[in-house]
Amino acid sequence: MNQKAIYELNTVKLDNYSLLLHESLFHNANGYIGVRSAFEEGYPEDFRTIRGQYINGFYDFSPAKQAEQLYGLVQEKQTMLNVADTQSIKIHFEDEVFSMFSGKVLKSKRWVDMDKGVTGRYVSWRSPLGKELEITIIRMASFHQLSLFTIEVQIKSVNFTGDVMIESYHNGNVMNFFDPGDPRTADEVYPYLTPLSCNIQYGASYITSKTSKSNLEVCSGVKNFLSGESERQFIVDDNNAQCQMVTSLQPTETSKLIKYCVFADSLRVDDCKAHAASEMKKALSVSMQELYQHQEDYLTDYWENCYVEIEGDDELNTAMQYNLFQLIQSVSKDEYGNIAPKGLSGEGYEGQYFWDSEMYMQPFFTITNPDISKKLISNRYETLQMAKENAKILGHKKGALFPWRTIMGKECSGYFPAGSAQYHINGDIAYAIVAYYLATKDVELMAGKGAEIIFETARLWMDVGNFYDGQYHINEVTGPDEYTCLVNNNYYTNTLAKYHLNWAAKIYYAFRKLPAFKQMQKRIKLKREEINDFKKAADRMYLPYDDTLKINPQDDSFLQKKLWDISKIPKRKFPLLLYYHPLHLYRYQVCKQPDTVLAHFVLEDAQSLETIRNSFAYYEKITTHDSSLSGCIFSIVAAKLGLEDKAFKYFGNSTKLDLLDLHQNTKDGIHTANMGGNYMAIVYGFGGFRLKENGIHFAPILPKKWTGYRFRISHRDSRIMIIVSKEKCRIYLEYGAPKHITVYGKDYLLKNTLTIPR
Amino acid sequence: MNQKAIYELNTVKLDNYSLLLHESLFHNANGYIGVRSAFEEGYPEDFRTIRGQYINGFYDFSPAKQAEQLYGLVQEKQTMLNVADTQSIKIHFEDEVFSMFSGKVLKSKRWVDMDKGVTGRYVSWRSPLGKELEITIIRMASFHQLSLFTIEVQIKSVNFTGDVMIESYHNGNVMNFFDPGDPRTADEVYPYLTPLSCNIQYGASYITSKTSKSNLEVCSGVKNFLSGESERQFIVDDNNAQCQMVTSLQPTETSKLIKYCVFADSLRVDDCKAHAASEMKKALSVSMQELYQHQEDYLTDYWENCYVEIEGDDELNTAMQYNLFQLIQSVSKDEYGNIAPKGLSGEGYEGQYFWDSEMYMQPFFTITNPDISKKLISNRYETLQMAKENAKILGHKKGALFPWRTIMGKECSGYFPAGSAQYHINGDIAYAIVAYYLATKDVELMAGKGAEIIFETARLWMDVGNFYDGQYHINEVTGPDEYTCLVNNNYYTNTLAKYHLNWAAKIYYAFRKLPAFKQMQKRIKLKREEINDFKKAADRMYLPYDDTLKINPQDDSFLQKKLWDISKIPKRKFPLLLYYHPLHLYRYQVCKQPDTVLAHFVLEDAQSLETIRNSFAYYEKITTHDSSLSGCIFSIVAAKLGLEDKAFKYFGNSTKLDLLDLHQNTKDGIHTANMGGNYMAIVYGFGGFRLKENGIHFAPILPKKWTGYRFRISHRDSRIMIIVSKEKCRIYLEYGAPKHITVYGKDYLLKNTLTIPR
Repeated sequence: MNQKAIYELNTVKLDNYSLLLHESLFHNANGYIGVRSAFEEGYPEDFRTIRGQYINGFYDFSPAKQAEQLYGLVQEKQTMLNVADTQSIKIHFEDEVFSMFSGKVLKSKRWVDMDKGVTGRYVSWRSPLGKELEITIIRMASFHQLSLFTIEVQIKSVNFTGDVMIESYHNGNVMNFFDPGDPRTADEVYPYLTPLSCNIQYGASYITSKTSKSNLEVCSGVKNFLSGESERQFIVDDNNAQCQMVTSLQPTETSKLIKYCVFADSLRVDDCKAHAASEMKKALSVSMQELYQHQEDYLTDYWENCYVEIEGDDELNTAMQYNLFQLIQSVSKDEYGNIAPKGLSGEGYEGQYFWDSEMYMQPFFTITNPDISKKLISNRYETLQMAKENAKILGHKKGALFPWRTIMGKECSGYFPAGSAQYHINGDIAYAIVAYYLATKDVELMAGKGAEIIFETARLWMDVGNFYDGQYHINEVTGPDEYTCLVNNNYYTNTLAKYHLNWAAKIYYAFRKLPAFKQMQKRIKLKREEINDFKKAADRMYLPYDDTLKINPQDDSFLQKKLWDISKIPKRKFPLLLYYHPLHLYRYQVCKQPDTVLAHFVLEDAQSLETIRNSFAYYEKITTHDSSLSGCIFSIVAAKLGLEDKAFKYFGNSTKLDLLDLHQNTKDGIHTANMGGNYMAIVYGFGGFRLKENGIHFAPILPKKWTGYRFRISHRDSRIMIIVSKEKCRIYLEYGAPKHITVYGKDYLLKNTLTIPR
Repeated sequence: MNQKAIYELNTVKLDNYSLLLHESLFHNANGYIGVRSAFEEGYPEDFRTIRGQYINGFYDFSPAKQAEQLYGLVQEKQTMLNVADTQSIKIHFEDEVFSMFSGKVLKSKRWVDMDKGVTGRYVSWRSPLGKELEITIIRMASFHQLSLFTIEVQIKSVNFTGDVMIESYHNGNVMNFFDPGDPRTADEVYPYLTPLSCNIQYGASYITSKTSKSNLEVCSGVKNFLSGESERQFIVDDNNAQCQMVTSLQPTETSKLIKYCVFADSLRVDDCKAHAASEMKKALSVSMQELYQHQEDYLTDYWENCYVEIEGDDELNTAMQYNLFQLIQSVSKDEYGNIAPKGLSGEGYEGQYFWDSEMYMQPFFTITNPDISKKLISNRYETLQMAKENAKILGHKKGALFPWRTIMGKECSGYFPAGSAQYHINGDIAYAIVAYYLATKDVELMAGKGAEIIFETARLWMDVGNFYDGQYHINEVTGPDEYTCLVNNNYYTNTLAKYHLNWAAKIYYAFRKLPAFKQMQKRIKLKREEINDFKKAADRMYLPYDDTLKINPQDDSFLQKKLWDISKIPKRKFPLLLYYHPLHLYRYQVCKQPDTVLAHFVLEDAQSLETIRNSFAYYEKITTHDSSLSGCIFSIVAAKLGLEDKAFKYFGNSTKLDLLDLHQNTKDGIHTANMGGNYMAIVYGFGGFRLKENGIHFAPILPKKWTGYRFRISHRDSRIMIIVSKEKCRIYLEYGAPKHITVYGKDYLLKNTLTIPR
């Protein structure tokens, strides 16, 4: 593991915007709980804060009123809830209270330690009356015990002698964030969670709350330990608990508070309260030192598996580690959750899951932590019945259509042309399952749950499409690019559907004799003729191609739309979607993000290199990259085409998107999906890695500014390290049986080490 | 005038559904005010009522929240308001109160007298204690004095002797209708109108109310006169006034109450209160008899101008008169209002105006009452600036785009793919102005306001479209058929745009030397080059045509969509829009209403008869007629094609749509737009009338079941009567200079009478 896994910022500047940004950047999460890093002691009254703590998959229903209600349009969505606030702590030094907004901040920094899995905050502070103190706060969302979040506060006196009184809060009266100035959220001020009980038990406070409509419960438990504690009292009402503790300090002395916070929810356990209490007991059964050690051990494994290092650009390398750290912070470790585009770091997109899971984040897990990838598949499987219901709502007579955005499995997309119409999500999910299978050879999953998802979603292609002029057409869908909606024969969708249908047939012939497969087949009443139909539609799938431009048009009518020189649009008009009516956008050849170009990456063998080169050049000119999912894909395809400088430029901007707040909305949450894309930009892009039926491929290129880079992937029973330098590319089989691999298009048998000149 | 202009129903049946239906069917309106015919005395408590009184164009803003707010989507709409209730009257016979739900109804009927312009209600009633009375109620919305609505109640005693106490109400506490069981309207329970004052002045009550957001005021005044009145008292609070009067009756005696109700609104006058008082004075300055006579005189003229008679089918003939009566009841007589698809008879579509005005109703007025047609054009002109703003919201750099639905000029369409995207409304308005000009030769209007509208809307075609492959394309619009949205090159839209652009050029060359035109040209900065551009786009307008089917496809991709045998869809699944997701509908070749077929009617010269015949046959199979605007157009085109039986069948169903409640929603308001279409089905359909640049055309056919029919139209300085019988067609020039006309394709000079054998 490289030695730069700390990202640190001097944070003397206390403007509200930076504070909101840092709440996201330094949030703690473990895939189950996420806590935004607000100041424990709060901000001044007129400051805004998104003081959130979230549980992956824990939601309430909220209204989604349509201005005109048509049949089947969503009228209710799901929102990830802000659960009880356990991060609030106030520290009194005699008659003064700690606040960075009073007295003088002598020094201040915040950091995330990605090896240790903690965030830190250090403040050297002189109070208005001259008391000098150093306060260090370490927070951890435990990977070892997912229910656990801890805050350790060290208070060191420089010149202060006297009593320290600490108020540690546990607040059940919480709301989701809303911005009163934004009409889009104004009437969503809704008390989703109602506390049912708040009480003290064995020195810990427990608050159990119930959701308004989804019939779910959550319980949080908080227990405080203060060194040298001389007094303690609880102040408790129906909704909140406060623990007041007193200790004393002398100059050079340090006092330490440890606050244990545990969470349990009724999605996962029957009795939340009892479970929270037992999780508290479990947390307290080992020392804090041991908990920290467990965290570090977990991450040691993680970093080993997903090892990536960029040599010659430390800043970029740290940014990349930050990206990977957020991926493991964000992803659910059980099938009750998935991975949201903003992880558990904020309320953007309301914590819902999109195609970003399969196409941007799961690929990373599939080749570094396939067990997590398997959980993601299980999460989709859990909602397959609802996807079948969703298909029915959209008028389909058979098959399943996964919702465009969802938490618990029902569609949440309020604007269907850029939502539910994105049928490609079915293909995306199938694609990710196939990739998982190619990486793991997990026949059990593939022949069971995997096959069931693939068949049910394949059936939908058969219901949505139709033969026309001898070819299979898919009409009235929307591709990944939301600046063109409701089109016929979207190239990305059709290409993916073809791949999907072909794989459905392959799976059938590969597994049809397995008992598990037969059971599944019986369960979904899959008939042999359906397989023939899949194959026929795949064989005759219409993929638009333009003879003049020698590119794949994004859809049937894309090229007849007006051209728009996006270089002439003023900067303040981006992202376009915030400044132009959809009808206007739909009328132009303008792309929010890669669509055909994405197809050229994920299914590169569908077209010749020449077509891909032409398409890339054509679409690059008309793509605004208004989506954070854009740059990484352009980087990958540029790399494939040997356009190193372009690949490098796209990659760098994309990798620092959150740390530099390039989209100016990181305050609402980090862009975890983009981070998965950035990983792909190194491994698939520069490394030229591909996972195909005929094995794995590499074709590394090296950006000029780097001296080299290296990464490690898992493939079935083996682990492989790739080290790329200016002169050569070395490939190590770290363990596992020898295997055939393809490097720069040439086949090799990887036994131990392979060194290939560049 | 024929002698059947009374539509009468026996109405002993008192189910709630029928009562709601009759509120619409027997409503009184004069284009300014509309009053639904609820029972004066009310219904039992558990009955629903849409007890509304409306003023054309009088609105408030109401929220239109989008489930996902995108740039430019409507967030606020306009709603026609239910203003003060002046129709409530309770009649006490000593200790019993009149109600058809108590005692016994011996006889009951309701009628609309279309010659006299009144509705009536007669009840012969025996009270629970055996009092027998006959009550006759005559209501009138005066065409002579638009502010005035009257109710005359005659109470005749059969066996009752004693005091009659009448409570006549004037209620300012009113709400728009909402159905608590319907989630689509549930949160629209909104007190739009707040009474500002309620007082008694010279024996009349006046209530002035203010809207919540649109900053408008309305004042209503009510004055009661009771014959033999012995006592009177007012009960007044901040919002309501009640006038209690006592008289006495003996067997065979009749007592009479006359209730005068006047309205004034701040859209039209500065001081509503003062205006209402002066309108009241005006109403009272003549006798009731005179008011009735004025009403009859007005209608005598009306019926003369729009004379239509069907011979050999009395029921259908009465239905047709009912249709025409509702048209004059519905249409605004000033430029502050237009004509809503449900007139002033209910709250369906919230009283907003659509393209129905120009394409379904205005054609009737243009050839029978051109002054009204001119007011409709003025109403659009009043909102031209807002149409220019609307175009900007949709991203256009120039031109005006009229809103799809509106009251005061701003877009109200919550679902833009089937709303704002219907750019054809621009062409519809231009078409109607040209038709008005062809009918009237009104150069003043055409060279001024008319030209300004036509140019500003023509400019929009130049901004929305683009040349592609040498032809002018219009992408991403929606045609009249809302079962296919956001398409490229909708045949109807493109054909209309071509006509529109050609006319813009024609107008320029015809009027450019007129001072009024020059002023207008300066005002809108119209350049000569623009005219060339109009002409070029018109000349090269792309009109989709399919070589195989030899039809005009509805749009570029219509024919590649799936076929759906609508004869196999169960009846309970119609209208499809209530049972299928829009994405499903968009994926099929299925039409809600005529689109290409409508183009074949309104711009019949754009294609050969053969193509029109093929198109008709093709689209007829796939059209559900889910819109009430469908049957009449199919009737017209069937007639044109000589398909007499089809034409007759479509016509009959369409003409009785409200009287037979065929769409089962007449309770929400009558289908005035359909009624305009039914008029066209006779005159344009069976009569083969056309209004073209080269003059007027007739080509009458006669349905087998009729012995004949006749109608009268106005054309410029002349009036023409057409009488069609089995053997011949006679055309009379009633007055005006001799003119060239075309009958069955042959030119004639109409001097006096022309008799042409059939």
